[in-house]
Amino acid sequence: MDSTTDMTESDQQANTLAQECARALWETDTTSQSLGMQLQNVTPGGCTMTMSVTDMMCNGHGTCHGGYLFALADSTFAFACNSYNQRAVAQHCSVTFVHPAFIDDALTARAHEISRAGRSGIYDIAITNQNNIMIAQFRGHSRTIKGQLV
Amino acid sequence: MDSTTDMTESDQQANTLAQECARALWETDTTSQSLGMQLQNVTPGGCTMTMSVTDMMCNGHGTCHGGYLFALADSTFAFACNSYNQRAVAQHCSVTFVHPAFIDDALTARAHEISRAGRSGIYDIAITNQNNIMIAQFRGHSRTIKGQLV
Amino acid sequence: MDSTTDMTESDQQANTLAQECARALWETDTTSQSLGMQLQNVTPGGCTMTMSVTDMMCNGHGTCHGGYLFALADSTFAFACNSYNQRAVAQHCSVTFVHPAFIDDALTARAHEISRAGRSGIYDIAITNQNNIMIAQFRGHSRTIKGQLV
Amino acid sequence: MDSTTDMTESDQQANTLAQECARALWETDTTSQSLGMQLQNVTPGGCTMTMSVTDMMCNGHGTCHGGYLFALADSTFAFACNSYNQRAVAQHCSVTFVHPAFIDDALTARAHEISRAGRSGIYDIAITNQNNIMIAQFRGHSRTIKGQLV
Repeated sequence: MDSTTDMTESDQQANTLAQECARALWETDTTSQSLGMQLQNVTPGGCTMTMSVTDMMCNGHGTCHGGYLFALADSTFAFACNSYNQRAVAQHCSVTFVHPAFIDDALTARAHEISRAGRSGIYDIAITNQNNIMIAQFRGHSRTIKGQLV
Repeated sequence: MDSTTDMTESDQQANTLAQECARALWETDTTSQSLGMQLQNVTPGGCTMTMSVTDMMCNGHGTCHGGYLFALADSTFAFACNSYNQRAVAQHCSVTFVHPAFIDDALTARAHEISRAGRSGIYDIAITNQNNIMIAQFRGHSRTIKGQLV
Repeated sequence: MDSTTDMTESDQQANTLAQECARALWETDTTSQSLGMQLQNVTPGGCTMTMSVTDMMCNGHGTCHGGYLFALADSTFAFACNSYNQRAVAQHCSVTFVHPAFIDDALTARAHEISRAGRSGIYDIAITNQNNIMIAQFRGHSRTIKGQLV
Repeated sequence: MDSTTDMTESDQQANTLAQECARALWETDTTSQSLGMQLQNVTPGGCTMTMSVTDMMCNGHGTCHGGYLFALADSTFAFACNSYNQRAVAQHCSVTFVHPAFIDDALTARAHEISRAGRSGIYDIAITNQNNIMIAQFRGHSRTIKGQLV
């Protein structure tokens, strides 16, 4: 008996579709791959990704550059807002840096959907480290465009 | 007769200090260096940086990942808000993606200061490509911390 | 047996303090009062407020001006971030307008705390109408200053 | 010889259209009127508005509520982004509070256009007081919808 037994058939279909979209997106997303991101989980409107902070991502003091934190959140956002098989792009994103990340930190980014109305969506992504310290808080605004993923 | 003849001595000192701060920051900023960014100009509260979009920064369709656009703007922001020899860090940044950037695009990011009050600063950074098309518009909020650069 | 029986003594004290802070803030907050806002609930880091859209808040087409939606969210934010008896002020706020609000709409704004670190806090406020339609999504960044409320 | 002699005929037509749009918008904008805002100037993509801080806009300490500062910026934004005779609405706005405004302050909000691409626009609005102190810095994102103003 698996964990999906409480899901309706419609929920299961939505979940399966989200995972198929993620697979299609991942194949072309060579930048997320090259940064060592790993896709942990995708649901309709949600996504969890992980990334280790490497030497290359840090300045001389061992602190992770904001661009790589943004990249992790932005990728997680992309998988969340593209989980309905309707292509969506980032329009406007904001990020608040709460605590610094350091070399070798194991970061987790979790996206959840705040709103979807017409072609516009809002997604929040929290990045935490291996000690569950909040590193950054990101809010992404998406807009659907023509085209499907699968 | 050079272009600095109209500057007061105090302006010249501020410019020199900005450039010395930039030199010190650049030495530890190995991430901006590793992404191929080039520091073109620094003034008190201002900065211009360039970066070429490489294969590694693009997905399978040849479009630049938002994380690298953010990284360019964020670095330009850092040099602008650290130009007074008072260490400053990014607190909150927002970015609007206006047009996509593509592989081999030559990007220029220009920062200018909107406001400085107490320990808080606001800086706007516009990223354009080689055809002067606006790629992204970034607004960064900084906060000064203890410590000097030079 | 009331609903607080599962709370620890420390939770109860925090709740009581939040309510005392709210009472003190409300007394000086004549603008929220004059707009007809009502304070429904305050907890440590959280707040619920309501407001009816009046004729004065609407343009000639009967649509509520964004300034009044912002005011409702901003007040709810203020009560949430001032609930620890440490004075806090708004630094930076963003708002996304999801659906328009109309004359006579009964709006509810709910604030919850996303992060608190050092002197900085992040609070999200969702405004919904009487049909539970999301009207606006607000994110507020606070900073504590000197002084207490009670 | 008036100040418009250097303008091309096309510039003059754009200016005239901007002013006609503003007149049409102003007639339905009863909320801006009821807050005592005054439209000083409108150009294609730009607008200047003024507002005095009244007793009603302030809390018990005489400090202006953020909602009224937002309202002034938001109205100025609306006139700027509706100056091309193509209806536009606010999608996402952010505001940074730089210095407090007090009762009887004479505020000026100046909007200028940062970007217009497809249906999306970015406008920055600075609010200053009678001593040219920056009170708030606002960035608005607009989206055009169907319909014209005149």
